[in-house]
Amino acid sequence: MPIVQIHLMEGRDDAKKERLIAEVTDAICHSLEVKPETVRVIIQEMPKAHFGIGGVSAKKLGR
Amino acid sequence: MPIVQIHLMEGRDDAKKERLIAEVTDAICHSLEVKPETVRVIIQEMPKAHFGIGGVSAKKLGR
Amino acid sequence: MPIVQIHLMEGRDDAKKERLIAEVTDAICHSLEVKPETVRVIIQEMPKAHFGIGGVSAKKLGR
Amino acid sequence: MPIVQIHLMEGRDDAKKERLIAEVTDAICHSLEVKPETVRVIIQEMPKAHFGIGGVSAKKLGR
Amino acid sequence: MPIVQIHLMEGRDDAKKERLIAEVTDAICHSLEVKPETVRVIIQEMPKAHFGIGGVSAKKLGR
Amino acid sequence: MPIVQIHLMEGRDDAKKERLIAEVTDAICHSLEVKPETVRVIIQEMPKAHFGIGGVSAKKLGR
Repeated sequence: MPIVQIHLMEGRDDAKKERLIAEVTDAICHSLEVKPETVRVIIQEMPKAHFGIGGVSAKKLGR
Repeated sequence: MPIVQIHLMEGRDDAKKERLIAEVTDAICHSLEVKPETVRVIIQEMPKAHFGIGGVSAKKLGR
Repeated sequence: MPIVQIHLMEGRDDAKKERLIAEVTDAICHSLEVKPETVRVIIQEMPKAHFGIGGVSAKKLGR
Repeated sequence: MPIVQIHLMEGRDDAKKERLIAEVTDAICHSLEVKPETVRVIIQEMPKAHFGIGGVSAKKLGR
Repeated sequence: MPIVQIHLMEGRDDAKKERLIAEVTDAICHSLEVKPETVRVIIQEMPKAHFGIGGVSAKKLGR
Repeated sequence: MPIVQIHLMEGRDDAKKERLIAEVTDAICHSLEVKPETVRVIIQEMPKAHFGIGGVSAKKLGR
């Protein structure tokens, strides 16, 4: 019964998030040999000012 | 000094969240025998497109 | 479909953790009006050296 | 720069975890169109007494 | 390769968050003797109604 | 009342973790202008087989 949390930069549309949920669930099922209905995926979007790499926000880095 | 994080589907009003905080804190205090002032509760709401069950988002599942 | 994560100091026995899972799930169901089978609870124990309060570990504080 | 956290029941060997990391990273790269080197995966194992489903631990449920 | 997640009450401006990212990354590098480019920081803001202290939300407490 | 969670590779001794808690708490207090007693820090250690970078575990990468 794996629970997956994914932090990613905000800005993707719902179709892309739907694909993310589907493909990550597949990967979990395949590698751990569990059934899809046991898998939960939580997507958490981060604004660019809320993610820091090497001490600088993604916003300031222009990513 | 328990710290509780609750992911739930977005859409509840503040009164319901207040009740959630109160009742979960009570449950923690009762079962772990700790004082209320040591308990912290964090609520994190998920948009329906951000929660996947069995590889499909709650949005697409119509939940 | 709430997912609850509880960080607590290590040292409780399994009976107490079982009670914690039962009572927190009850509190969630009651306050959010959801069914028990939709609730997941994850307990994460912290060694005393891994939890800091006011800049000092619980181990050093003697808690 | 996605960061993925996976909670799963303890008991898999390192080979399976290695496969999990590889396949989930692939799924992330494919669905989000990002490069593998930007992806981080954190595996967090749960003892059976630490995971609750419907108010009962996986240990007590015999899973 | 430390990954830091910071939950804080919403309401700070981007300049303050930038400073937070910079100073926490410095503290990590200094205390753990790692290089800045290996550090990731995620800021997660909480609305006042989403944070409970002693069973009451920060909103209701007027904080 | 910031809550900080730090994932890091296992293997540091308690003195280093104590320093980590102290210095990160200082950085939080300084950058956010909050008092130390409001800050909580949780350290979560990862075995090398549990952290993936670019699809490969830190264990396999020899880090």
